[in-house]
Amino acid sequence: MRLASQRLADLGLTLPPVPAPLAAYVPAVRFGDLVFSSGQLPLVEGQLRSTGLVGAEVSPEEAHACARIAVLNGLAAVADEAGELDAVARIIKVVVYVASAPGFTGQAQVANGASELLGEVLGGPGRHARSAVGVAALPLNAPVEIELIVAVGSVPFIQPV
Amino acid sequence: MRLASQRLADLGLTLPPVPAPLAAYVPAVRFGDLVFSSGQLPLVEGQLRSTGLVGAEVSPEEAHACARIAVLNGLAAVADEAGELDAVARIIKVVVYVASAPGFTGQAQVANGASELLGEVLGGPGRHARSAVGVAALPLNAPVEIELIVAVGSVPFIQPV
Amino acid sequence: MRLASQRLADLGLTLPPVPAPLAAYVPAVRFGDLVFSSGQLPLVEGQLRSTGLVGAEVSPEEAHACARIAVLNGLAAVADEAGELDAVARIIKVVVYVASAPGFTGQAQVANGASELLGEVLGGPGRHARSAVGVAALPLNAPVEIELIVAVGSVPFIQPV
Repeated sequence: MRLASQRLADLGLTLPPVPAPLAAYVPAVRFGDLVFSSGQLPLVEGQLRSTGLVGAEVSPEEAHACARIAVLNGLAAVADEAGELDAVARIIKVVVYVASAPGFTGQAQVANGASELLGEVLGGPGRHARSAVGVAALPLNAPVEIELIVAVGSVPFIQPV
Repeated sequence: MRLASQRLADLGLTLPPVPAPLAAYVPAVRFGDLVFSSGQLPLVEGQLRSTGLVGAEVSPEEAHACARIAVLNGLAAVADEAGELDAVARIIKVVVYVASAPGFTGQAQVANGASELLGEVLGGPGRHARSAVGVAALPLNAPVEIELIVAVGSVPFIQPV
Repeated sequence: MRLASQRLADLGLTLPPVPAPLAAYVPAVRFGDLVFSSGQLPLVEGQLRSTGLVGAEVSPEEAHACARIAVLNGLAAVADEAGELDAVARIIKVVVYVASAPGFTGQAQVANGASELLGEVLGGPGRHARSAVGVAALPLNAPVEIELIVAVGSVPFIQPV
């Protein structure tokens, strides 16, 4: 079995630098074997990949790509807090907020961008509980924001993955 | 004292089959004595009971009924992960997302559909912290989505319930 | 180093009485060393400080002040559950829901009202992970709702704060 860090390289991806918080908070906090991330935006080198509401200015396909980037930023924040990506033992919960134009109800498809990346990088331990919701607006006019709860270190898992 | 499974039967209810996730995730994840559910929709045998925004196409009363169904689906997901409904030791946190028409501010009353069912089925251990928020849209045009954090097994509780 | 309760007094603030939940739930639940709060509104003596959408009826500056009050209510709920404010060991996660008019994307600035207060009262242990999102509407037409996950008691922290 390949390590998550190897899978990431296989995909041609690297963890970005941890995006600086927009304000008086931190990218992630560890409590025991749990790491809680801040909400992560689809920032690439400090710039949002897209802006606007999904279903209006932003297409579902573009939002799917944004979800992929936002969750990669989330993994970077978690890895920074945990010491390394390979310390991730399980993705527990993912919340995907999708800035949604009136009538847009494809939040699950957008959120799949994040869920699929987690599966590609982490395999079984990347399988997570998830909520996808359509919100009115997000900071900086981002189309997607994603937060993670992650188990790190050596923890007993009940559920076979 | 009656078990939660007995109370459920007293109410004429049964736990539904765990709804299949809409995508690349799982219905719930257990970490130690905590179970985190995915966001649950008011699906009955695979069909949404209602669709649309609360305060427009969906009445507050109908949304209240949808919250009751969504949280029952959440209990099913948790029970499946924990082995049985009677393994639930405490409902810790409930987030109720209500797809809200402009100007609709009765999210708390809608969310009561979930909170009341938890009390009816679980009694004191069903008393939970809760957030109710009005969102722009939800997957499949669902009016309500509910996520749970639940303690299972034998855990020490500080708060008398 | 001054205790959180002393810092609070230094700021001329007192913890308010714990706001009564709007319905069938409780202000906060403790599980082990974690306390999960319910969503807290900017209630002062039972009345909302402001109502309406931020970016329309409510200015960003007023919403910032509301976030400060809502998080103070959250600290009150946590302190009540933990026994005292000084039992707070770390603010782990804060979610700030901002009821947002179309096109308002300054949720981070609004949420800073909460983050800054946590820093002023708690110092390093007040540094938290955070999500700020713009929602369609909130209960009672509140402009802001805030939920907390907090570590209490004596817990090992990995991250230096």
